[in-house]
Amino acid sequence: MSPSSGIDATRFLHRLRTLAAIGRDDQGRRTRLAASDADRAGRDAVAGWMREAGLAVEIDWIGNLIGLWCPAGAQGAPVMMGSHIDTVIDAGAYDGCAGVLAGIGVVEALRDAGEIPARPLAVAAFTNEEGVRYAPDMLGSLVYAGGLPPEEALATVGTDGTRLGEELARIGYAGPQAPGFLVPHAYVELHVEQGPVLEREGIAIGAVETLQGISWQEVVIEGTANHAGTTPMSLRQDAGVAAAGLVTWLRERARRGNGRSVATIGRLRLEPDAINVIPGRAVLTVDLRDPDADALARLEADVAARLQEIARAEGVAVSVRRLARFDPVTFDPGLVRAIEAAAGARGLSTRRMTSGAGHDAQMMARLCPAAMIFVPSRDGISHNPREFTADADLVAGADVLLDVVRRIAAGPPGNLFPS
Amino acid sequence: MSPSSGIDATRFLHRLRTLAAIGRDDQGRRTRLAASDADRAGRDAVAGWMREAGLAVEIDWIGNLIGLWCPAGAQGAPVMMGSHIDTVIDAGAYDGCAGVLAGIGVVEALRDAGEIPARPLAVAAFTNEEGVRYAPDMLGSLVYAGGLPPEEALATVGTDGTRLGEELARIGYAGPQAPGFLVPHAYVELHVEQGPVLEREGIAIGAVETLQGISWQEVVIEGTANHAGTTPMSLRQDAGVAAAGLVTWLRERARRGNGRSVATIGRLRLEPDAINVIPGRAVLTVDLRDPDADALARLEADVAARLQEIARAEGVAVSVRRLARFDPVTFDPGLVRAIEAAAGARGLSTRRMTSGAGHDAQMMARLCPAAMIFVPSRDGISHNPREFTADADLVAGADVLLDVVRRIAAGPPGNLFPS
Repeated sequence: MSPSSGIDATRFLHRLRTLAAIGRDDQGRRTRLAASDADRAGRDAVAGWMREAGLAVEIDWIGNLIGLWCPAGAQGAPVMMGSHIDTVIDAGAYDGCAGVLAGIGVVEALRDAGEIPARPLAVAAFTNEEGVRYAPDMLGSLVYAGGLPPEEALATVGTDGTRLGEELARIGYAGPQAPGFLVPHAYVELHVEQGPVLEREGIAIGAVETLQGISWQEVVIEGTANHAGTTPMSLRQDAGVAAAGLVTWLRERARRGNGRSVATIGRLRLEPDAINVIPGRAVLTVDLRDPDADALARLEADVAARLQEIARAEGVAVSVRRLARFDPVTFDPGLVRAIEAAAGARGLSTRRMTSGAGHDAQMMARLCPAAMIFVPSRDGISHNPREFTADADLVAGADVLLDVVRRIAAGPPGNLFPS
Repeated sequence: MSPSSGIDATRFLHRLRTLAAIGRDDQGRRTRLAASDADRAGRDAVAGWMREAGLAVEIDWIGNLIGLWCPAGAQGAPVMMGSHIDTVIDAGAYDGCAGVLAGIGVVEALRDAGEIPARPLAVAAFTNEEGVRYAPDMLGSLVYAGGLPPEEALATVGTDGTRLGEELARIGYAGPQAPGFLVPHAYVELHVEQGPVLEREGIAIGAVETLQGISWQEVVIEGTANHAGTTPMSLRQDAGVAAAGLVTWLRERARRGNGRSVATIGRLRLEPDAINVIPGRAVLTVDLRDPDADALARLEADVAARLQEIARAEGVAVSVRRLARFDPVTFDPGLVRAIEAAAGARGLSTRRMTSGAGHDAQMMARLCPAAMIFVPSRDGISHNPREFTADADLVAGADVLLDVVRRIAAGPPGNLFPS
């Protein structure tokens, strides 16, 4: 295999399209929520492709699906690739899936070329990365990295009232391995950028050196439900008005910040949810992100202060529950340089960047040197069926992953890069 | 029967409590949505009490439940009393039910006293007054008064996707009578105020002379769903932020108005409703009310203009659908005076007032002279389990209803007031 040869693009892209077609909800939307029937169908397909690629399929307690290639002569901790295949509601085709399937493609490229690495290789599909059905997001890799006890994670109650552990057992993906059973030598994750930077600058490969900190909270506002026709405006404690006040303020606050903060209220439910009743209760989520730890903490403090002001001004009661909190992450500088070098050797333009999204790589960074390879997202759109990355960009990213993994896995224990 | 004798208070209040206990939803809330199983149970109880009172129970195509007392010698159009027994979600015990059960109590009081009216009497429980499950509200009385074709009303699709006609048939309340089969000589409705005025002023009886106009609209805002972490604040089309902008503006606009406008956004749903996805779609309802027709029209025009501004400023698309629209109503001045006189004769304090809520009486006012009797609501609270009216106030209101009906029904065709 020549150094410039790459993965089997046709097979990689075909699998990506096949996986993208799995999991339509009753409204025809691509929806593979973690541990759902649709997720099972996706997992079955991925496990099949892992076996086709000669990987031994292992499943851990939290449902992480890991394919392991341990050829004769390979030794030491494995080099791990991976991402996730669960999706948001009405999702795109690439988020997560590209990284898992590229990992399988890397193994096949080496096997097909008869190139035996000095270390085992592993490809992981982590459980519940999106966090839509169960909180927190990146739950599978968090448990894998030791950041959350498995029994606590398995007891998590989802938005639909289900327990993650029961759902994993139901779909046949509650496995026998203890999470973290393989501590990787290094972890490299290919992912679509999900933002507009690479496309806007015409750059093929992002070498991700940092990742935003994330704060997720649920806010409950209790006002007074009352008749919409007979209650004068001055006598209302309208939980919906209070919630709307937070939404409009938060957007302005994030805009006023350091230019890197983002803030989103993605869920907002009113009760009793009737056209002629003043909302007595509002339940909403707050998603705050910033690559700077201090800026994120200031943003959180400002939200808390604002909620107190709203409570006083509107005569409502406010309570807040933390759903998830991750500090910003700095990836391994050596791995980031290796990604830049691999891209450069293939004549691909590259830039260092920050990830705005959370990724399994940030959890794996607790266990081993980790980094990420980004490829462009058209119009920066993600978590949406219009998510799109060109085939050539996907294949270029997978080839960079191949080259980086080949280099790290070339030698036995010792330095990250055996040289 | 002496002129100052009244209805059987014990029986009236017992029935009110019995009906209040019918229809708990899975969260334990009092919820008898129109044409639901709970509504059937409530209707069965009311129909039973009507028969106990010697009323012939009639049901029309739209499910209106009408008890008719046509004693030997009575002739001409009946005097009708009534209201509704469907509720909002997590409702109080009095709204609507008091008027229906007081009507049955009036018939019993006259029968028990051997006092035969010159006209038939009728007691109506109209379908879907609340409008929570099917729009518009006051649907049963609207159809009865000829304001909406029955076939159109029966085809109405509810918030749960059901059709009203199918649900009425399912619960056994799709009856054989054509809506409007009895055109009343007059219609008088007892109702709890659902507002704070009577209690605040220490007045026992409200003689309702006008009723607010009501405008209900559904607004759909289409933005762009996108990743909450990777999409810069400046590149978002957040349907939730756009919706919140309307909510906060509308409250200020209603406050700035003539002091009588009320405006409520009771429902607001975000899509895809995920913590880490920018809302791509928001669906919300707007409830506007004003006793002045011009002021209501100005309020509607201002909402429309504001939505256009929001669409431009936020880069979202906005569409509006009218759900219901009723002009303000002026009740029959002679009936209003009769209510004042009856209250005065019993030594009850009284005042004229405007109804902030919509009521079946406003629809019946299209068919015949109509008016309403209000009794105080503690703290003005309604559409809430804390809704409360003291027993003595309820009985006083029912007695005034008795006296007014007795007077109107005393003579054969001719003037509204035979004497």
